[in-house]
Amino acid sequence: MSHLTDKASVSIRKQPPNILRELLKQATMPDIISLAGGFPAPESFPTQIIQECVNTIIKTKGTKIFQYGVTDGLAELKHALLDLKRRDLNDITFESIQITTGSQQALDLIGRSFIDKGDKIAVELPTYLGALQAFNFYKPVYFNLEPDEEGPTTESIKKAFLAHVKFIYLVADFANPSGSTISLKRRKEIAFLAKKYNGLIIEDSPYKDLRYKGKHIPSLYQLAPHNTIYLGSFSKVLAPGLRLGYAIGNPELIRFLTIAKQGADLFTSGFDQAIATEYITSGALKNHIPKIVALYRPRLEAMLSALEDYFPKDSHWTHPEGGMFVWVTLPKTIDASELLKKTLSRKVAFVPGKPFFPPSARPKVGLNTMRLNFTNTPPEVIRKAIKIIAEEIR
Amino acid sequence: MSHLTDKASVSIRKQPPNILRELLKQATMPDIISLAGGFPAPESFPTQIIQECVNTIIKTKGTKIFQYGVTDGLAELKHALLDLKRRDLNDITFESIQITTGSQQALDLIGRSFIDKGDKIAVELPTYLGALQAFNFYKPVYFNLEPDEEGPTTESIKKAFLAHVKFIYLVADFANPSGSTISLKRRKEIAFLAKKYNGLIIEDSPYKDLRYKGKHIPSLYQLAPHNTIYLGSFSKVLAPGLRLGYAIGNPELIRFLTIAKQGADLFTSGFDQAIATEYITSGALKNHIPKIVALYRPRLEAMLSALEDYFPKDSHWTHPEGGMFVWVTLPKTIDASELLKKTLSRKVAFVPGKPFFPPSARPKVGLNTMRLNFTNTPPEVIRKAIKIIAEEIR
Repeated sequence: MSHLTDKASVSIRKQPPNILRELLKQATMPDIISLAGGFPAPESFPTQIIQECVNTIIKTKGTKIFQYGVTDGLAELKHALLDLKRRDLNDITFESIQITTGSQQALDLIGRSFIDKGDKIAVELPTYLGALQAFNFYKPVYFNLEPDEEGPTTESIKKAFLAHVKFIYLVADFANPSGSTISLKRRKEIAFLAKKYNGLIIEDSPYKDLRYKGKHIPSLYQLAPHNTIYLGSFSKVLAPGLRLGYAIGNPELIRFLTIAKQGADLFTSGFDQAIATEYITSGALKNHIPKIVALYRPRLEAMLSALEDYFPKDSHWTHPEGGMFVWVTLPKTIDASELLKKTLSRKVAFVPGKPFFPPSARPKVGLNTMRLNFTNTPPEVIRKAIKIIAEEIR
Repeated sequence: MSHLTDKASVSIRKQPPNILRELLKQATMPDIISLAGGFPAPESFPTQIIQECVNTIIKTKGTKIFQYGVTDGLAELKHALLDLKRRDLNDITFESIQITTGSQQALDLIGRSFIDKGDKIAVELPTYLGALQAFNFYKPVYFNLEPDEEGPTTESIKKAFLAHVKFIYLVADFANPSGSTISLKRRKEIAFLAKKYNGLIIEDSPYKDLRYKGKHIPSLYQLAPHNTIYLGSFSKVLAPGLRLGYAIGNPELIRFLTIAKQGADLFTSGFDQAIATEYITSGALKNHIPKIVALYRPRLEAMLSALEDYFPKDSHWTHPEGGMFVWVTLPKTIDASELLKKTLSRKVAFVPGKPFFPPSARPKVGLNTMRLNFTNTPPEVIRKAIKIIAEEIR
């Protein structure tokens, strides 16, 4: 007789558990210094402000906020986002916005809405693991966007659009995992090509507000609003434990996400949405972002200077102006997974870079890379951890 | 040049917007008496208790609860559910539980985990629309379970298992839309067949605690724990605006749901999960359920007596012992959708029964049926609404 587990769908059997999530379990063991996660610093969470938001909501909204809500999102939150984003994201209207259960759900809804089995989609090398996890379920064929110092090359973007990819997925500001930012010149080229070939850009933008130096660069959405779906998140500017993200784009495309979401979870927590609304409209958000930036800036600086001081000269790394990650390329002879085993024995965790490459990438690419998170560890501990990793490299 | 909307996946194009959600928009217009939604009464939401839960959480859990969480669910909530459900659901362990973003997400994760295109799954006639919405995306072939007074017939269940359906989906207690409950005798037969044929039962159980008369009946899970995934919800005993549900079953099967959820939304709101934990462990939940039951019982009685007083003799309806809905079968000559147009002009809304039948049902089946919700309207208003519908039937 067959076993009940034989009833599993082919899709779910082929979906490996998220390596990062498995790793994170290790990284939360006591005494571990973890540069592995993509965690904001808990001391950055405005818990007292959240308490005040809750008090206000329960006093002023009464029971309404606890009832079933509409799928596109709490109207008050959509209006608050409109006011907040109108300056940076042109042409947006109430119908341009879909609230999602974290940014991860936005990625899943994008997958549902645009990918049929075998469809081509384009991603950077390396790219965000959570996006691969979301998209993989819909069985796309990956088209690789090769990067140079300014971002994915114009040539590879053009090739992708000519190959009729359903969309190109980009993290334009302080990418996960690379920390890189696409230059304004390259953004303009990408926007031009998207318009020329009627291509779709998915611009994942969870880190844009976390800029520690340099100047704000217009988003891809701003340069090609009709051709871009912009994904935002409250995880880095409020708290990830409230699962809140949003997709902003052409209402005709956003409508697909709304239909997809009806089956997926009907609507996002009304209570969490109300908290975010109050957080924006009370002015707390604008007030709080500079505090997060002030907390993270010295952590990034500590990481970059420790890398400079301790890491071997034949390795190199990115110099992010914001976000949460530095990406290191070690000498070709070093396998980052093997290195991790050694550093774990000395209670230091990081993430090997390999999982951030799509299945289409060459098998050996990225083996000598690693992602280092700097937001969840104080500067002096970062320095200590980098020193330990450097010792194990030698 | 092609239009950007042409990039939509075939799946999303074939997914019609949820008719019920569209209807609900109408039903929330001012002055409408709505028996249409599946809404709990807002006065049943324990808002002051939620405020107290939040105060306790922020005082005792600090920032931790706002950090990224694990995909299977907040450990404290899983432990609280274990204690709460252990008596009714035998053999459950920590690994048996997956927390979901509302019960709707559990249905989606079931679809992801078990349905490949063309796979057979079995549902009752009629069945829950939200389940059809979730499952349809994965393109199953529906196998119809014909009901008699005791539930889906043993014969049809046997046929379904022999046809190798991936699972049978049942709402055993006070079903949506029918209000019917499967008899103990029939449950035992279903459990026997599931074991005999190694079949999988999805037991959706959001209403079990809302019993207004009669005696508790053991769940299908209790009768066939190895063969059943049990879905529960906080929407009816706490509030739907906190999106919280759970799946309980054989850990080997639950593991698939966890993998599916990683891509879908990573994890469910930690803040909402902490509120539910506090709500259970403080004893508030057990205290609050009798109050909800006391609120809804007279509403059900008002609906049944008004139907008796006003509806034509050649119509008939279910006599639920709990839940939220009464299901009415009108004379064959009456089309409930046409009737709705008339009653809407008199400011009364209900839901025609047709959408609750899977695509596999005969085209004309259910045209003369309707679902009436009694939980969100006071008794005297229910009476008035039923009278108006009855007048429009004549």
